[in-house]
Amino acid sequence: VNSLMSGLGTTVFEVMSGLAREHQSVNLGQGFPDDKGPEEVRVAAADYLMTGHNQYPPMMGIPELRQAVAEHAKRFQGLDIDWQSEVLVTSGATEALGDCLFGLIEPGDEVVLIEPLYDSYLPIVRRAGGIPKLVRLEPPTWRLPREELAAAFSGRTKLILFNTPMNPCSKVFDREELDFIAKLCLKHDAYAVCDEVYEHIIFDDRRHLSIMTLTDMRERTVRIGSAGKSFSLTGWKVGYVTAARELMKVIAKTHQFMTFTTPPNLQWGAATGLRLGDSYFSGLAADMQRKRDHLAHALSDIGFDVLPAHGTYFVTTDFRPLGFNGTDEDFCRHITVEAGVTAVPVSAFYDAPEHAPRHLARFCFCKHDETLNSAIDRLGRHF
Amino acid sequence: VNSLMSGLGTTVFEVMSGLAREHQSVNLGQGFPDDKGPEEVRVAAADYLMTGHNQYPPMMGIPELRQAVAEHAKRFQGLDIDWQSEVLVTSGATEALGDCLFGLIEPGDEVVLIEPLYDSYLPIVRRAGGIPKLVRLEPPTWRLPREELAAAFSGRTKLILFNTPMNPCSKVFDREELDFIAKLCLKHDAYAVCDEVYEHIIFDDRRHLSIMTLTDMRERTVRIGSAGKSFSLTGWKVGYVTAARELMKVIAKTHQFMTFTTPPNLQWGAATGLRLGDSYFSGLAADMQRKRDHLAHALSDIGFDVLPAHGTYFVTTDFRPLGFNGTDEDFCRHITVEAGVTAVPVSAFYDAPEHAPRHLARFCFCKHDETLNSAIDRLGRHF
Ligand SMILES: CSCCC(=O)C(=O)O
Ligand SMILES: CSCCC(=O)C(=O)O
Repeated sequence: VNSLMSGLGTTVFEVMSGLAREHQSVNLGQGFPDDKGPEEVRVAAADYLMTGHNQYPPMMGIPELRQAVAEHAKRFQGLDIDWQSEVLVTSGATEALGDCLFGLIEPGDEVVLIEPLYDSYLPIVRRAGGIPKLVRLEPPTWRLPREELAAAFSGRTKLILFNTPMNPCSKVFDREELDFIAKLCLKHDAYAVCDEVYEHIIFDDRRHLSIMTLTDMRERTVRIGSAGKSFSLTGWKVGYVTAARELMKVIAKTHQFMTFTTPPNLQWGAATGLRLGDSYFSGLAADMQRKRDHLAHALSDIGFDVLPAHGTYFVTTDFRPLGFNGTDEDFCRHITVEAGVTAVPVSAFYDAPEHAPRHLARFCFCKHDETLNSAIDRLGRHF
Repeated sequence: VNSLMSGLGTTVFEVMSGLAREHQSVNLGQGFPDDKGPEEVRVAAADYLMTGHNQYPPMMGIPELRQAVAEHAKRFQGLDIDWQSEVLVTSGATEALGDCLFGLIEPGDEVVLIEPLYDSYLPIVRRAGGIPKLVRLEPPTWRLPREELAAAFSGRTKLILFNTPMNPCSKVFDREELDFIAKLCLKHDAYAVCDEVYEHIIFDDRRHLSIMTLTDMRERTVRIGSAGKSFSLTGWKVGYVTAARELMKVIAKTHQFMTFTTPPNLQWGAATGLRLGDSYFSGLAADMQRKRDHLAHALSDIGFDVLPAHGTYFVTTDFRPLGFNGTDEDFCRHITVEAGVTAVPVSAFYDAPEHAPRHLARFCFCKHDETLNSAIDRLGRHF
């Protein structure tokens, strides 16, 4: 069997959710809301199952969703996107990443990545034949190390893949940082593949900024978005890719043989979602911000050192002040089994967990107050 | 960008469906039913959207569907499958193929394939680093050339990938042929990856036989099935893989980074479908057989030479008796534009269409009688 793939473990999210089920703990590990998602979005998808065309839609996605993605890019980023040639619907952002990486990377190409990183990035970069060049952000500030980033680029760099707002460290890249990345892309004739699935989960009056909007980046940026994240329906697995026509061609050719297409009824629901008013999107951000504050304050009261969280579903904590001796994996297992609360070890977001920070646990706050309160209660009683 | 991927064309199904839309022709090209699919299956999926958990399901699939897939394998193939470790749900059979090929192939491995073949096979085998060894079936009998097949296997063969019932030539592999393939797999320590998406679309009292049931093949076969095909809901993109525990491990590890998971409401619907009574499945086959007869007789009356069709949605025809001079591509464009009926050129199912048979067009019969009659009418008036 393939040695790269067989050498992998099971994704940390699956492992921790399994452990959570086993111990009936409150699962603040894997990032999914316990909200049901907007009713009109689910109704649209359900109606379509009964009255719509549940056969293969066009390979690029149904026109209504591709149009909605283009309109949404205009509305929130001021981008002019041609929905027919520059938007692709995928079976989730994970598939979108696969389409981009298998489609853009030629074996031997270098790919710049920023640690900590989402756990599908490295396996797919490697399976696509890419050579990862890792640059590391250091807690607690997660500042971009500019010199190291510049040094990671070379004449062999095909692309940089990064995530903003960033999971797990909840960093939001600011204009200066994006500008720095953009200049490196331009200097080295590299693409920027930007995982923007948390574009609407962003706090404290920050606005999501896509690197695609920066000077000369329109033609070399690939944006990845997610209906699952924007509409609290993570099981739907509806993603979308936006890229200039020439780049899109090879990404779409890859997509056609990776999944070919995505269920039309869920595409229809996602289109309904993207056309919700601004108040939906600002409401989502406000609600998540309130949840962040709630969990962050409580964890801090319990004795965690809580790191800043500017976006995403997650807050990262340093558990050393609690007096716990052991790795982040030990800690996450410990609280699952002993306190009945599950978190995810941040070292799982590194190529070599044994050489990663081992003192950080990521908690997910995209949950109902009762869920958060129950977790807070249990942790409070334990520590 | 990746040279293998950028060198590909757009899949023939998408191209011909686009042409059909453009010319408002009756589309008997891309294989999808115009039936709506079983109501109870769609209702189950719709209800789940309103009342179920629309967040990430387990990475391997929801237990109800994995159990249903295992029960279905017992019911129809007499196989004892452990639903927890030997069944994986995927976002369609296309993703399932990707999981198997990226998961099993080590760059440099040889992969035996049988032409004509479905158009996603070769690009993914090659992108996974496999070296295709093609064996060709010849019309009109599409008999397995045993010597050539034996010669295609070697000590470097990792797997054979084949399809039964077989698209586009509607061949159903019989026990002797499967036995011959199985012996080659055993002799060369190779896997059999078997695309069985048309397992229930099979005619004239034939029964689908999985190579997994043959002596010593249980541990080295990977079966791929499709809810889209079995429930006339091709847009759903719900597939399933069955494989022995050890093989499944690497396929699942690949899946977790290809799409991670599949929409739970559609999984729920598919589970409802797989548990329908035997009369549903025999009714589906009988209905498709009636449609095959209807279209095959009519095309024959019009003057086509109609090849036998033992399974799948498709009938293959030799158009030379009509006096058409030109390739199969020319013919399919010609009838789209001039007669208002779309078919698919069979040469698109070969690695090198220019060296393939150029006299065959594939027509899809999984359509309402009105649709078939309208196509028959138009072709009858034209020729
Ligand atoms: C694919 S499950 C992972 C969900 C998620 O994005 C996270 O928890 O980080
Ligand atoms: C992915 S669209 C192809 C549908 C099909 O299986 C066919 O027409 O052969």
